[in-house]
Amino acid sequence: MRIGIAQTSPVFGEVDRNIAEALDLIGQERADLWILPELFATGYQFVDTAEVRELAERVPGGSTTEALVEHAHRHGCHIVAGLPEQDGDHLYNSAILVGPDGFLACYRKVHLFCAEKEHFTPGDRSFPVIDLGIARIGMMVCFDHLFPESARSLALQGADIICHPANLVLPDLAQRTMTIRALENGVFTATANRVGTEARTSESLTYTGQSQIIGPDGEVIGRLSQTDVGVFVADIDVERARNKRITDWNDVLGDRRPDQYKL
Amino acid sequence: MRIGIAQTSPVFGEVDRNIAEALDLIGQERADLWILPELFATGYQFVDTAEVRELAERVPGGSTTEALVEHAHRHGCHIVAGLPEQDGDHLYNSAILVGPDGFLACYRKVHLFCAEKEHFTPGDRSFPVIDLGIARIGMMVCFDHLFPESARSLALQGADIICHPANLVLPDLAQRTMTIRALENGVFTATANRVGTEARTSESLTYTGQSQIIGPDGEVIGRLSQTDVGVFVADIDVERARNKRITDWNDVLGDRRPDQYKL
Repeated sequence: MRIGIAQTSPVFGEVDRNIAEALDLIGQERADLWILPELFATGYQFVDTAEVRELAERVPGGSTTEALVEHAHRHGCHIVAGLPEQDGDHLYNSAILVGPDGFLACYRKVHLFCAEKEHFTPGDRSFPVIDLGIARIGMMVCFDHLFPESARSLALQGADIICHPANLVLPDLAQRTMTIRALENGVFTATANRVGTEARTSESLTYTGQSQIIGPDGEVIGRLSQTDVGVFVADIDVERARNKRITDWNDVLGDRRPDQYKL
Repeated sequence: MRIGIAQTSPVFGEVDRNIAEALDLIGQERADLWILPELFATGYQFVDTAEVRELAERVPGGSTTEALVEHAHRHGCHIVAGLPEQDGDHLYNSAILVGPDGFLACYRKVHLFCAEKEHFTPGDRSFPVIDLGIARIGMMVCFDHLFPESARSLALQGADIICHPANLVLPDLAQRTMTIRALENGVFTATANRVGTEARTSESLTYTGQSQIIGPDGEVIGRLSQTDVGVFVADIDVERARNKRITDWNDVLGDRRPDQYKL
């Protein structure tokens, strides 16, 4: 199975331009599964909730979802990507999974970061795992990385690959936590971060790239630069994520002792 | 508050020599709390369970506990250290906490590694946190580091400092996981590993040192070498572990969403 991460540089509010940038990038290489950044089509730095409401879409049915479905159908691939979702009065920082036959699943970010708490409703549908046949796909978004329960919830439901759209501004935090998430759960993780700077308020945000794919032993399969738009694709053996043995005696999930935890 | 880690080089079975080595090391500097390695007085590579039974001690009451209590009383300090515990027919890979006034607590390793599963009973008393007044102390041992539930259980019970006696053979795994444990829980972690080689079976084990103290932001406060016996002491501000705010909006424990987890 071949998976790819795309590191884009969205311009705030220029949805058509940002979708075109992303689809152009992932159209240049073949992969069975692509991961795009969090809020890849809109940009991240909303100045108020009205802006979110203006750019948010129904899922499924919104134009960003439709554009991704159309690309997935034409290229025979699956895509995970972040977008602002509107559902009635609620706005969510969501990630969707689409495939050649259409929309498959939506994840609503559970752990909101900073001013996201002013603009979005926290996710209310837990962490989803979708069985594509070729692999079981889990989704989480950006700041979820700091909470080990996110990746654990996905791994315990059988995720082989944790897809992680992100808009990271710290240069080397999620890269480390996601490496540990891969190791401690015996899964692949694929983080797609963006680059570029947004300075729509007094606070300037520079996104730090370094999108990465990590293997179940915590090995860096590939990592992009801190500043440049680009893609990285890798052929992975999904079976490696199904074997949780790490020694003759130890199983990274089977050795858990839930009766001893105070959580 | 001053804490110290001692990196020793035990000789298998030479209990008196190993205790003397450790107490000599920690007697040379002042600290309020010392952390010694896992199984520091006996060595690690037991060839069969009979050897464990021969070297295991009652807790409290055994001679290793008594030697540590005597030192703690004389120096006005607390000590966390690993030792094999016998309780009836059961043998545990345990860590104890002692202070100037005697024995305080025992932790029985929950996640056993490799052949430890043949020699020891898995811990059955969860992860303990002890309030010393100057700080709240949590204990876990070696391989517990790979399971985020270990440190999480301690942090949720209010641990400020996670004491982590270890006998690590991989050169750079627990150093990374324990850094993430500190970050994701906003606590100090103090890992005391040993050095030296044991080759009592066909498998030679070389322990990889790099004992470390990590702060709540994941910063390396100090790390010892990969090969040498030694100590490291640091003055820490325990209050830092009580403030779980990481941004104006975010709290590293308060932002948890237990109703969204599938654990």
